[in-house]
Amino acid sequence: MTQMSMARKGELTEEMRAVAKQEGVAPEQIRDGVAKGTIVIPKNLGHKLSRPIGIGKGLRTKVNANIGTSTDYINPEEELEKAKVSWEAGADTIMDLSTGGDLDQIRRQILRESPVPVGTVPIYQAAIETIAQKGALVHMDRGKIFEVIERQAQDGVDFVTVHCGVTRGVFERLRLQGRVMDIVSRGGAFLVTWMLANGEENPLYEDFDRLLDIAQRYDLTLSLGDGFRPGSIVDATDRPQLEELIVLGELTKRAWEKGVQVMIEGPGHVPLDQVEANVLLEKKLCYGAPFYVLGPLVTDIAPGYDHIGCAIGGAVAAAAGADFLCYVTPGEHLRLPGVKEVREGVMAARLAAHAGDLAKGVKGAWDWDLRMSKARKRLDWEEQIKLSIDPELARRAREESRPMLSDVCTMCGEYCAVKLVEEALRG
Amino acid sequence: MTQMSMARKGELTEEMRAVAKQEGVAPEQIRDGVAKGTIVIPKNLGHKLSRPIGIGKGLRTKVNANIGTSTDYINPEEELEKAKVSWEAGADTIMDLSTGGDLDQIRRQILRESPVPVGTVPIYQAAIETIAQKGALVHMDRGKIFEVIERQAQDGVDFVTVHCGVTRGVFERLRLQGRVMDIVSRGGAFLVTWMLANGEENPLYEDFDRLLDIAQRYDLTLSLGDGFRPGSIVDATDRPQLEELIVLGELTKRAWEKGVQVMIEGPGHVPLDQVEANVLLEKKLCYGAPFYVLGPLVTDIAPGYDHIGCAIGGAVAAAAGADFLCYVTPGEHLRLPGVKEVREGVMAARLAAHAGDLAKGVKGAWDWDLRMSKARKRLDWEEQIKLSIDPELARRAREESRPMLSDVCTMCGEYCAVKLVEEALRG
Repeated sequence: MTQMSMARKGELTEEMRAVAKQEGVAPEQIRDGVAKGTIVIPKNLGHKLSRPIGIGKGLRTKVNANIGTSTDYINPEEELEKAKVSWEAGADTIMDLSTGGDLDQIRRQILRESPVPVGTVPIYQAAIETIAQKGALVHMDRGKIFEVIERQAQDGVDFVTVHCGVTRGVFERLRLQGRVMDIVSRGGAFLVTWMLANGEENPLYEDFDRLLDIAQRYDLTLSLGDGFRPGSIVDATDRPQLEELIVLGELTKRAWEKGVQVMIEGPGHVPLDQVEANVLLEKKLCYGAPFYVLGPLVTDIAPGYDHIGCAIGGAVAAAAGADFLCYVTPGEHLRLPGVKEVREGVMAARLAAHAGDLAKGVKGAWDWDLRMSKARKRLDWEEQIKLSIDPELARRAREESRPMLSDVCTMCGEYCAVKLVEEALRG
Repeated sequence: MTQMSMARKGELTEEMRAVAKQEGVAPEQIRDGVAKGTIVIPKNLGHKLSRPIGIGKGLRTKVNANIGTSTDYINPEEELEKAKVSWEAGADTIMDLSTGGDLDQIRRQILRESPVPVGTVPIYQAAIETIAQKGALVHMDRGKIFEVIERQAQDGVDFVTVHCGVTRGVFERLRLQGRVMDIVSRGGAFLVTWMLANGEENPLYEDFDRLLDIAQRYDLTLSLGDGFRPGSIVDATDRPQLEELIVLGELTKRAWEKGVQVMIEGPGHVPLDQVEANVLLEKKLCYGAPFYVLGPLVTDIAPGYDHIGCAIGGAVAAAAGADFLCYVTPGEHLRLPGVKEVREGVMAARLAAHAGDLAKGVKGAWDWDLRMSKARKRLDWEEQIKLSIDPELARRAREESRPMLSDVCTMCGEYCAVKLVEEALRG
């Protein structure tokens, strides 16, 4: 039984209760959201999680951190370290996107240690094993992807990105229209390569029911991937992107009929003035399924600062109703991120998520800022540090630059406005 | 003659031509904007500037970097270094906010070396000299502030923050309403302290014509300060803030009557969903005068990451029509920033400004992203680095993590989506 099937029967699962407690809402609200599909609780039936979460309408916007080896950099210990740094820094989920080394072993270790839900993109492993076994991706069997998904589900993976909307029809629209960046999704690229060479339809689309059967058995949440997401702001909100979203909307309904939980992945590179419309389109075309945005990144020109570009897009998306933000690190578009960049990426995404939560009025969000402002007004530095999104960094920054007067900071010193006004009013 | 008086006579100054060239628009467009007051060219008649700029409607959103000593940290050489790092990193203006050491000397050195317009907040020096000479701020003469403004104008300062809207009437609204953070503007705090102790009106308001006479003589651009800007998102868009803005709108008209150039300073701490309304209110109440926002910072809980919180608010503000963003560094709310933080602050603000420019369709903005995306599609790394907002950082990040194949990066290695799709399409 999936969370969705239980919810539809009116049952309250342990996870629904845990999520309700975290969010400070009634368990029934979570149950009703899960039943309708506007909330997902990504948790594999066979995976023990100390920090289960809900993603969706009315809930705190969640943050995902991607980690994983690449063919150029294979250091499983370091990837595990990145995963730990992520959940310690407050990431709500981890995705293992490893493409180098022993993929099964890396994933299993992360699954064992993670207190938070773990996601994967199984097409990576399907493609990489095919290349290793048969010399080229184009020789992949139709069933390979399902075999890998089942293997990963058995291991306890909580959610998978599946690019079911990468169809021949959508690709034709891309070809007709043309694009600056064509396809920037790795999963999308693997599938299109295979489809073009074999003249076949995407198995994840054509055999969607087979995917649903696996998802149902493990309560594996499907994160319907956006293989045609724009990789340049110039390509944003174009015909292939929207055609794929239309397909994902149709598949969402089919998944829900089988009690399978679904999220929808979204762009990508999107100029600021199109972000809100993108959220609206997803909510409309996919019946309110939770929206998991990969950014969005509001400009293409800032490698080294893409975590900031994504914080801008992510905050605006969250405010408009996006439910789940995939972090981007300062290394994006330049290299595989290191541990430090992973931490910075998580913090930037958390900040964006919170800014969105304030704007959309998520329960409890305003209280945090109010407590911080009151501590600031009292010049209570210890409390300000404790309430900071990153207390460790805030403490270090202050300690490196001690003021002469203990109640102010070195920015204004004795001319602290808060202190002056306090004295003037008392005076 | 000020730029505004010249523009009204239909004359094209050298600065108008330079600004038009930079922006890629007709000089007449700049002249007409200056005449109407929707564009300012902050340049003191006596200050040589190698990089004059225009700020306002239809132009690229500009970025200011604050530097300056504090009572806790007096190192004029380091402040000069911060100024240099700022303009080298692309800041369009510098504000010297020094409050420690020999203020005249620090300012004069920056004015000599700066290729970009320099701004100040003269009330700081007026207050600090009063305290040094008379033992307390409350003993300040009414004329002191004008004497300091004139001295700074003689030195060549291009624009000054003057908190003319900090009136007894507005303060009364604050007292009636109450606030979490009262006043967080240092200039506002100095003025209110003096006004309360002496039972007098703000000289900058009461003797506004005296200020206009000085501004006219030097073509000193007035940046009408927001002494009542919210210092907590809880206080945003409240009665004192709006009452002050109403006063600033009245003063804008009076300045324009005398041919004095005016910008309006804006918040501050503002939740994301109120940012656009704040821009609209300024444009409406101040007749389209350029809007210079101090952030806005979209959450109070992120000391150490406030440059990111401000990039979110600044981008949304710029997209909505804000013309000029004051940077915020990662040190904000914790300490006086160091050189590295200054550079990070400039980059974050430039990114935000550009994201806004893309959204509001500023001339040439889209071309930058298009060129970057085309270089990315060609896997032309040298060109990508050159087109990066911070080529130095992008080059370093890539060089620290070299891929095995020279045409990709270590994130995806041989499974680069761009490369895979290119090959699949080539067939």
